[in-house]
This record gives sequence, structure tokens and C-alpha cells, in this order.
Amino acid sequence: MRGRVVFLGTSGGVPTLTRNLPAIALRWGGSLFLFDCGENTQKQLMRAKVGFKKSFYIFITHMHGDHLLGLPGLLMTLTLQGRRDPIYIFGPKMVKTFLEEILPLVGSPPSFPVFFREVSSGEVFRGSNFIVSALRTKHTIESYAYRFDEVGREFYFDDKKAEALGIPQGEIRERLLKGEHITINGKVITPEMVRGSKRRLFSFTYTGDTRPFPELIDFVKNTEVLVHDSTFLSSDIEEAEESGHSTAVEAANTAKAASVSSLYLFHISARYKDPKPLLNEARKIFSKTFLPKDLDMIEIR
Amino acid sequence: MRGRVVFLGTSGGVPTLTRNLPAIALRWGGSLFLFDCGENTQKQLMRAKVGFKKSFYIFITHMHGDHLLGLPGLLMTLTLQGRRDPIYIFGPKMVKTFLEEILPLVGSPPSFPVFFREVSSGEVFRGSNFIVSALRTKHTIESYAYRFDEVGREFYFDDKKAEALGIPQGEIRERLLKGEHITINGKVITPEMVRGSKRRLFSFTYTGDTRPFPELIDFVKNTEVLVHDSTFLSSDIEEAEESGHSTAVEAANTAKAASVSSLYLFHISARYKDPKPLLNEARKIFSKTFLPKDLDMIEIR
Repeated sequence: MRGRVVFLGTSGGVPTLTRNLPAIALRWGGSLFLFDCGENTQKQLMRAKVGFKKSFYIFITHMHGDHLLGLPGLLMTLTLQGRRDPIYIFGPKMVKTFLEEILPLVGSPPSFPVFFREVSSGEVFRGSNFIVSALRTKHTIESYAYRFDEVGREFYFDDKKAEALGIPQGEIRERLLKGEHITINGKVITPEMVRGSKRRLFSFTYTGDTRPFPELIDFVKNTEVLVHDSTFLSSDIEEAEESGHSTAVEAANTAKAASVSSLYLFHISARYKDPKPLLNEARKIFSKTFLPKDLDMIEIR
Repeated sequence: MRGRVVFLGTSGGVPTLTRNLPAIALRWGGSLFLFDCGENTQKQLMRAKVGFKKSFYIFITHMHGDHLLGLPGLLMTLTLQGRRDPIYIFGPKMVKTFLEEILPLVGSPPSFPVFFREVSSGEVFRGSNFIVSALRTKHTIESYAYRFDEVGREFYFDDKKAEALGIPQGEIRERLLKGEHITINGKVITPEMVRGSKRRLFSFTYTGDTRPFPELIDFVKNTEVLVHDSTFLSSDIEEAEESGHSTAVEAANTAKAASVSSLYLFHISARYKDPKPLLNEARKIFSKTFLPKDLDMIEIR
């Protein structure tokens, strides 16, 4: 397993007996990426046995309380546990104000450095094998979608081809893997000559709260895992428009237009005692649609 | 049933898989009293089916995050539900600052009036049939214990005695109930003459976080339900002293000295995977000791 996505909270606005407020964990290598942090996220992380990683990045979509009121408690718990490794928080500028105002009122300063970076549309963070980018969405207040893209080799190295070409094991193969041309016995070998099958690069997009709009389709293009605001049924579209949210059908339309691999309906309004109709109406448009429950998990292989 | 006490969260500092952060609900008549409001209290209220009452009073012991980080989310949910009835919040002055700073950052203003009253030792609120009082405790920061006392008639009216004395039904009996002397056929009847068995008046005390100290014994005297800080085992008393908490044995000593009816150990440290030893050591001193789990309930009859 290369990683996993865990749905920690899938409700929107208010929690229900079975759904917590928005939060999604992405474990990738030795890192933990947390997208939004609704109330009770720390407990959900515990229940999902995700574990607090040395590298911990938190991305907040916007300043509505249901998306970030779990943040102070999470930071306090990490302090009580004596964490020393830094935490990186990304989001609108007011997230920093929020933490600066609230943390001194309710406890000791964090036992670890908190680095905050204000986001805008475009690349927001780059690691050795991933990039996270953001897109300003259409909500009632400043809000961002986040996209995680694995970066690295797009093809596997074909050992058989390499042997046939007489390329020795070791450093030379490493250079080919990195894209260099090499020369063996006066013969130039290009990376293409040892290229194997295509290597799937994982990608994940979380829209946060938003109405559909054309740039969003470009932003989520070809995503493997798309988690999309799906607060309402189509029959409640007027409320979706007023409150800056999407219907399940709108989420499916975006997923289809963007040729994503799979769509996960998220931020489900507490009004629907049975949310199955949301799934049904989305599947008519985009068959690979899912309706995750809290603590459901996607294994990335 | 006259009311009930529901333990919504019984952990201290950090939540565990089975224990939420501190919050206790007291339903009394048509009113809801909430003592502390740790993260996820709104969900626990839902799970306990307590219901948001027209009269809703919230008492915060102190400004440590584990005791009040559930407050903003609770108020936001009530706003999304369109509540109009006021909410009364009592606590140290900084609770007001906290709400004034945080609420405008994370959502719309409450849909209902929020009345805040700063507390100090002494009576803090009086209703038609109850009094709530506070006592400044010994914690690392300003913190209060709260005591709820039912007020009203201390004796039942003895119908048989009244009949024997020839007292007619109706308004005359009402006047006797209220303590008046009345005259029937030239004979003076005093309330004592129709006094029946003693009527138990319910009382509840929640210490919040505290070290034991003599005034606390006076404050909890004869309480029917005493919920006492019991963060540590006796073997961890040094930590209890440093962090301004009590051990289970200290809680039991206070319960015994104050002749309370029952003791409930509360604010259990997450370090004890099995908290049973806390109960065992307390019971050796005070036999009517209990160790409530989250959502345990005491019915008041």
C-alpha cells in the first residue's frame, strides 16, 4: 500500500449521530495530510488509527466553523503529548488570526513550531514526491479546493530491455531513471529505450465548499480520487445556490467533464436521514460515484 | 422522574476512544443545565437524546480548552437550527472574550440572545425552584466549582392530619403550604400541624478541576450527587499537585468529610487504560463511589 485516504467526518454544517464534521486524512509515505479539521477530528484520527506523523500538513479550506473548530483541540492534544516536530498549516489568512487569538486563551503555547502559509490559487506546497495546489472556489466566503499530485517517474524501468542492451546494474541505471542519456561501448542509451509500462501517479482533489464552475473542472482534471461538495439533492438546488454549495448531480457533472477516476460525495446535509438518493442521482451521470461513511478508507496501491 | 444527570464527557485533558472531554448535563424540569462544554459536546448531547431546552444555562468552570472548546460549535449548531430562545452562559470573564473573538471569525452571529454573567464565589443564579452557587477552587488558573440546589418545600403536606383538623380542600391548604398560619372556627392552624414526611431536596455539585481544600468540603456539604475531579491515582499525587488536580483518594476524603450521598469520579486521565483502580482506592474510603462512563445517567426521583 502506497497510502490511504480516510474520511474522518463527512457531514456538513452540523454533525449527525453517524457523521462528524468535515475532515479527510491522507497518509502518504511517512506524512500525514489533513484536509479541514471539523470539531472532534482528533477523536476521529484516533478511531481511524491514523497516527500523528512526523511530517504533518493541515489544509483548511475556509473559515466556517464546521471546517476548523477541531483545530485548537488537536493542537492542544499534540502539546499534551509533547510533540516537538513542526506542523504546517495552510489556508486563508484568517486561520492564522483564529489560532493566534484562540490558543493563548485556552491553554499553553504549542510544544512544537506551527508554520502557517496563506494560500491563493496555484501551487501552495511541494515535497520531494508531491505537489499540493489550491484553487479559489465559489462559496459564500473565501474558500479553496486542494489538489494533491504525486510527482516522479511516469514509467517503470524495464529490466528486461536493460539487460538486452547490456546495461549493468547500479549507478548507471539510476541515471537513466532520472532521465539522463548514457553511453555504453560508444552506444547512446536514452531513457525511452528502457521505458516499461506506465506508472500511475496518484492524485487526490478535495473541493471544500463550492458551487460548480468551469475552472473547477480544469482543476480536478483526471484526478484519481475526487472528493466533492455534495451537500444537497437536485430538488434542493435553490438552497445550494444560496449557500454556495453543490448538489450531487452537479458534483457528478464535474466528475464526468473532468474525466476523474472516482467521485466521493462529501459534506452531506444533516437533513437527509437517508442520503442514498444523493448517490442514486449522481450515479445516473457518473457511475463511479461513492458515498463514504465516516471512517471509510481508500487504499492507494 | 424529576430530572436526570448525564455524563457527556468524562475524560480530562485529551479524549480517549471511549471518553469525551468534560461536559455534564442536568435536566431539571423544563430546563437544561450544562456544566462545561468540551469538544464534541454537541454530538454527545445528541447521542444522549437530552434535547435543547427552551431554558438553557451553561456553566464553564475555567478557560482550559478541554473544558470549553465545544462551545462555539454548539452555539453554531443552535443557530443553524434557528433557535430563538436565549442562552445564559456563566463563567470566568474570559469566556466572554473567547466567544466574542471566536464567533465572528467562524460563522454568522447567533440567532438567539447570549447573556453572559461573570461568576465569583457565592450565589450566581436563582430560578423559581433552584439556586446555583459557585466556589473559586484551587487549580492552576481561575476555576470554579458549581453547586445546584433545589429550593422549595422541605416537608410533604399531610392530608390525613389536615382532614382530622377539618381543613377544607383548596386555597386554605395552599396558604398553609406556603407557610401561613390560618384560623378555622377560631382555632389557629400552623403549617407544622399539617407537616408530613421530610421532602428530599435535590442537590448536585461539580468541582471542576481542583486540589482538595477545606472550603471545598463546606461547599459540597450534604450534596446528593457530587462529581469530583479525580484525574489521578494516589501513586501519581505529585502530578496532581503540580497540575492542580485531585486523586481519587482525595475526592473520596472530601466526599466523606462532607457527608455527601454519592461520589462520581470525573476528569479521568487518559493515561489509565483501565481506570478501575481509581474506583477501588476511592471506595476504600467512601463506599458510595461510582466511576461513570460517557453517557451514563443518574435518574433523580
